[in-house]
Amino acid sequence: MKGAVLHGPRDIRFDERPDPTIIEPTDVILRLSATCVCGSDLWPYRGIDAPGGPTPMGHEYCGIVEEAGSAVRTLNRGQFVVGSFFASDNTCAICNAGYQSRCTQMQFVGAGGAQAPFLRVPLADGTLVATPDRPAADEVPSLLAASDVLGTGWFGADAAAVASGKTVAVVGDGAVGLCAILAARQMGAERIIAMSRHPDRQKLAREFGATDIVTERGDDGVARIKELTNGLGAHSVVEAVGNQESMMQAIRSTRPGGHVGFVGVSHGVELPGRELFYAEVHLHGGPAPVRRFLPHLIDLIARGKIDPAKVFDLTLPLEKVADGYRAMDERRAIKTLLRP
Amino acid sequence: MKGAVLHGPRDIRFDERPDPTIIEPTDVILRLSATCVCGSDLWPYRGIDAPGGPTPMGHEYCGIVEEAGSAVRTLNRGQFVVGSFFASDNTCAICNAGYQSRCTQMQFVGAGGAQAPFLRVPLADGTLVATPDRPAADEVPSLLAASDVLGTGWFGADAAAVASGKTVAVVGDGAVGLCAILAARQMGAERIIAMSRHPDRQKLAREFGATDIVTERGDDGVARIKELTNGLGAHSVVEAVGNQESMMQAIRSTRPGGHVGFVGVSHGVELPGRELFYAEVHLHGGPAPVRRFLPHLIDLIARGKIDPAKVFDLTLPLEKVADGYRAMDERRAIKTLLRP
Repeated sequence: MKGAVLHGPRDIRFDERPDPTIIEPTDVILRLSATCVCGSDLWPYRGIDAPGGPTPMGHEYCGIVEEAGSAVRTLNRGQFVVGSFFASDNTCAICNAGYQSRCTQMQFVGAGGAQAPFLRVPLADGTLVATPDRPAADEVPSLLAASDVLGTGWFGADAAAVASGKTVAVVGDGAVGLCAILAARQMGAERIIAMSRHPDRQKLAREFGATDIVTERGDDGVARIKELTNGLGAHSVVEAVGNQESMMQAIRSTRPGGHVGFVGVSHGVELPGRELFYAEVHLHGGPAPVRRFLPHLIDLIARGKIDPAKVFDLTLPLEKVADGYRAMDERRAIKTLLRP
Repeated sequence: MKGAVLHGPRDIRFDERPDPTIIEPTDVILRLSATCVCGSDLWPYRGIDAPGGPTPMGHEYCGIVEEAGSAVRTLNRGQFVVGSFFASDNTCAICNAGYQSRCTQMQFVGAGGAQAPFLRVPLADGTLVATPDRPAADEVPSLLAASDVLGTGWFGADAAAVASGKTVAVVGDGAVGLCAILAARQMGAERIIAMSRHPDRQKLAREFGATDIVTERGDDGVARIKELTNGLGAHSVVEAVGNQESMMQAIRSTRPGGHVGFVGVSHGVELPGRELFYAEVHLHGGPAPVRRFLPHLIDLIARGKIDPAKVFDLTLPLEKVADGYRAMDERRAIKTLLRP
């Protein structure tokens, strides 16, 4: 098969790669219906966190079970499934507490490179969630979104304790931030403030449920959030970028006793302990335990309650994967869907 | 009157000071029944965070209303009251959410210097809680503890989401850490691991409810906590020191999805964002909103359910305040009670 391989900074190639095979009896091989490029793929693409050598890319996926290992109990060939970027047994104490992203047997599914026609998924019974029926073609992009970008935005809102009647701010207008807005709306937030300076993203933010847009950043952005909240700050703030400025903007935009949910993969962040102490916010985040949310998200999609596929504003055939990265790197696209 | 004044590093004097007077109509003047020395008083005493000039000390207090300002509605001369180190209106949105330590009108009561016979307390209606009856003399030390050390330990356990059936670890065996153990026991924790290397404090930790003692610190301490928890870490960890080592020890001793409650006043702490991201713990702390807990704590003390006064292992007349600081500085005493 041919799939995406990163060779160096901004050097993505559509290369010949070995077909994946069952290694452990708990594995399945999926034939992918769709895959995509993640904001976090741009870090190594830009030469930050660069891998040591040519590396298969991609960790967002949905598709059809092609082959199941001998120990797989709940999945059969032909079923349509969605999974997360982290494989999890979904039975250990950490999974039972809802933190499948830190399962005691956790493995990175993306090691197999999901920007490809086929993918090996370990711990398949624990990792994958089957849809009730084979989805219609137009549902596939939303189900793909559930695999990471929607699940991550949802976790950001959950970690920020979004609930009915609260005021929520979202730092970061990438696909994850936009999905956090969608999640906050579903969770009943009264007011949702999107921090965004890009008109196309502001538009989608409003479609997803944002009630206010703040274009200022840093201290000016914090001041605007305070102005909009009687000087107190938001109850819940989702951080969906991962750098020092965005983390401090999130913490400072949150009222005392409020909650910051941070899901941007952290790069170069150092949190000042004294400020955090006196900020008196709740801080929670990390790699999203998407598996926790998948059944609910699949249900919302099946019932037509949400349309997270709107974050895909560029669709390309898989062989054009390099164009997909380039469009996101240059911020011409929010998120690129790839069709194998 | 005469009260404690800090003149420079390790230079506490029992000095003549002006009697406090009503300044705002919402003030009361208390005649203190007891006061004490806080672990946090040792920071300026040791020359860290040193004030610019001679400074009245002390912020823990209980006593009898001597005089009430004209706008005080709920308190009368002669009532016995307990309050927190932060005055709060107890009516703003932040107070209503339980964060009286960050009240929009917050003032530091300790500015008046509670290591003295009399103390001015601002925002008295919001700040002070009256006991149902005039307490017996032997209840006064426990009520004094509620003013800060118990309230702070309690908030640490609350912030760490301690609950029935959970395994709790407490980093720091000072009076606050010991009170966090007492709180965890009251909240129904199944297992309480005290991290302590001092035999006298281990003994009190066990009296307060610790089921296990870990004497190792830093990475070795973390390894011991993991050993005791099937390799996972504790569900809830209270941090009651405030330095880099203790914060990292707390974070690393917590299982993914677990909760760190940090109440040690932060000194020189920088939290690494990437590690925090992958730790996937909940982090919450700061100056304790003691006011939130006071009614419950006063009730527990009145019913004889808890005896936090055990943290006071040295009682001195107020004029010996310098001896009280010295004993705590040299770790000969856990906490010094002062009788005006």
